[in-house]
Amino acid sequence: MSDTIFDVAIARLSTQEADFDERLAALLAWEGVSDSSVQERVQAILEDVRQHGDQAVLAATNRFDRLNATHMRELTLTQEQLKAAFDGLPDAQREALTQAAERIRRYHERQKPQSWQYQEQDGTVLGQKVSPLDRAGIYVPGGKAAYPSSVLMNAIPAHVAGVREIVMVVPTPDGVLNELVLAAAHLAGVDHVFTIGGAQAVAALAYGTASVPRVDKIVGPGNIYVATAKRAVFGQVGIDMIAGPSEILVVADGGTDSDWLAMDLFSQAEHDEDAQAILVSWEQQHLDDVADSIERLLPSLEREEIVRQSLARRGALIQCRNREEAVALINRIAPEHLELSVEDPESMLEGIRHAGAIFMGRYTAEALGDYCAGPNHVLPTSGTARFSSPLGVYDFQKRSSIIHCSAEGASELGKIASVLARGEALTAHARSAEYRIRD
Amino acid sequence: MSDTIFDVAIARLSTQEADFDERLAALLAWEGVSDSSVQERVQAILEDVRQHGDQAVLAATNRFDRLNATHMRELTLTQEQLKAAFDGLPDAQREALTQAAERIRRYHERQKPQSWQYQEQDGTVLGQKVSPLDRAGIYVPGGKAAYPSSVLMNAIPAHVAGVREIVMVVPTPDGVLNELVLAAAHLAGVDHVFTIGGAQAVAALAYGTASVPRVDKIVGPGNIYVATAKRAVFGQVGIDMIAGPSEILVVADGGTDSDWLAMDLFSQAEHDEDAQAILVSWEQQHLDDVADSIERLLPSLEREEIVRQSLARRGALIQCRNREEAVALINRIAPEHLELSVEDPESMLEGIRHAGAIFMGRYTAEALGDYCAGPNHVLPTSGTARFSSPLGVYDFQKRSSIIHCSAEGASELGKIASVLARGEALTAHARSAEYRIRD
Repeated sequence: MSDTIFDVAIARLSTQEADFDERLAALLAWEGVSDSSVQERVQAILEDVRQHGDQAVLAATNRFDRLNATHMRELTLTQEQLKAAFDGLPDAQREALTQAAERIRRYHERQKPQSWQYQEQDGTVLGQKVSPLDRAGIYVPGGKAAYPSSVLMNAIPAHVAGVREIVMVVPTPDGVLNELVLAAAHLAGVDHVFTIGGAQAVAALAYGTASVPRVDKIVGPGNIYVATAKRAVFGQVGIDMIAGPSEILVVADGGTDSDWLAMDLFSQAEHDEDAQAILVSWEQQHLDDVADSIERLLPSLEREEIVRQSLARRGALIQCRNREEAVALINRIAPEHLELSVEDPESMLEGIRHAGAIFMGRYTAEALGDYCAGPNHVLPTSGTARFSSPLGVYDFQKRSSIIHCSAEGASELGKIASVLARGEALTAHARSAEYRIRD
Repeated sequence: MSDTIFDVAIARLSTQEADFDERLAALLAWEGVSDSSVQERVQAILEDVRQHGDQAVLAATNRFDRLNATHMRELTLTQEQLKAAFDGLPDAQREALTQAAERIRRYHERQKPQSWQYQEQDGTVLGQKVSPLDRAGIYVPGGKAAYPSSVLMNAIPAHVAGVREIVMVVPTPDGVLNELVLAAAHLAGVDHVFTIGGAQAVAALAYGTASVPRVDKIVGPGNIYVATAKRAVFGQVGIDMIAGPSEILVVADGGTDSDWLAMDLFSQAEHDEDAQAILVSWEQQHLDDVADSIERLLPSLEREEIVRQSLARRGALIQCRNREEAVALINRIAPEHLELSVEDPESMLEGIRHAGAIFMGRYTAEALGDYCAGPNHVLPTSGTARFSSPLGVYDFQKRSSIIHCSAEGASELGKIASVLARGEALTAHARSAEYRIRD
């Protein structure tokens, strides 16, 4: 396969081709399921940490991250270390990180729901009480994909939600620490940082160890071992989602500079070889222009090889008939990132049912949202925007129903409950309700 | 074990005993994880349905539910059948079901969130758009636990959320249909009903077949095969939660009739042998009274054997020191159902951080909430109220972030994004942002 796909930088598709649906399906196909050997290895690590706690975490960390730690203290960062990393940043970075954090905080403040109650005529009160989680665990990937922006995007919503303790884990393969990641942890108000990763970190957060506090929910992306471990501990703790490779769908009407659009596609493709960048337009000349821009700009990229592979394997320029067909494609794909690089993006918005984040107009590059616009950059991938939301304050809170019946209300409800409970042959339910019926 | 546990109907614990924490932990322990043989059988069924669609569903249904269906038509119920079931109910049942549905609908209408936007000084607009799922799948258990109330509790929030199509599956072992379940499906506005269950039904909903439409999320409880299948397809579709056995924690101040409280505990215990009923009080005499009521009333129960087993294996009467300790116990247990059978339940409410549903005061029996108070009866079990919410309208909707930068806004954000992207060595991100910086 790889000898043919590099003939062109990126595939060209048209909705008018007979095999379009098949080609699109093949392009979008992504199997995030781990094979049984990964499953077994993860299961063994989870069990080991569950039984042996810190010792198992230490052993796995030394092995996988090539360290020689003898005590969890060596895998623990202090608040002083985080602050020192923040203080030590170049001014421009410290300022940019601070501004980004402030904007992210401001947006997420708007997501805070209120508890509510209402009273019925007979005095019965019904309601919903919103409470934060006690403890949240944040998984931050290490190595080549250690992103300080992800620390902000995961920790700030937890903080805004009112979570009491935020525990972060970040692996440091070969002992390499990322100062920007530590600085972001300081800025976002992370309470504990452990330099551990993989399934062993997920296990430590899910079960707790002598050193690592057990959390109530684990959020954040990771490799296949992390994803498999998160799926396995789901139920024991909450998890956010199982993330696939990142993707963007750009819809263009021909009025945006083709170099801008090429770079927007590159910004997605540079993440990794599995990332997906797709552009849709009803203007054939515009698609040709973007294809030319791609060819011309590719050699200027620092991460050229990754981008070339990503575009060749999973990218596409798609010609569609018109605006309506573009909207149908959006809903078919349910993209993680949707860029509406058109004159009047508002007019398309109503028809869009499935997308993680919608970047509207020619100026709103996805990269702005990745770092500092305010909304979260942790978004549902691989079509899961059909049923999932961006990471948000709501991920760090839960609701409790409130029911407070008056004597009169209980009497009336008791009559209904009695009939239905007997219909289900649950007679203790019925009798419990009937005790509250007034004579 | 079983020869000793029936010496008393229910265990007595006190927080003052040295081994209290251990005994409580043992009582609460619940392993919902399926063993590898279940995993493998479920995986085989999922794969079979994925590859062979309807034929695989038919074969599995015939085998597990002891049927002889030759076409999916035979496993499909029509709207006429649902309506006929509703019309055919005894008046009292039809009326009770209708009133319950109306109250459930009214409560869930209050959960509907609004989309929102705000504009910044430079014209940049940020917001959040709420959209319903296209299709929801509802799993309704068949056989001994076929509950019409669960149909209402699952389908009505989906309907209120604006879901376009609601697909229900309910197994009919040996071909036995539950008329109340069909009537509830009619009342709740279910669009399609298939009489299939188990892992094969979960697979059909997750992958779609020629007959069964692929859904975006699967909700509803089921046995270990259903739970294992839901966990496996999570990511392909959304799921609600992995439900464990049902439980109640009652906190009593001594002022509620001990017979009422015994029956409240029975109403939980009668679900099945794994169900859990716990009463906490700081009044020793009251605990003794409830123990007496339990002994006296047990022989009068239709489901006496199930209740006896449930209480003996997993039930407890716990004496605590005072009100504050009771609140600490609530948060430690994070119960699915919490009954505050006390004079002034409001005063305890603020301190309660974790509970699925809170039933306040002496009149509010859990059974009223199970059927008709309004709030949902699908609730987080086994301590998962630490991080999970009752099933609600929010389970059938998702959010998309909206970012619409003005030219000026993009220029300012571009500067921040550029610094941060270069800090992450993502230079295509940086250049995409920099194109939007004004000269």
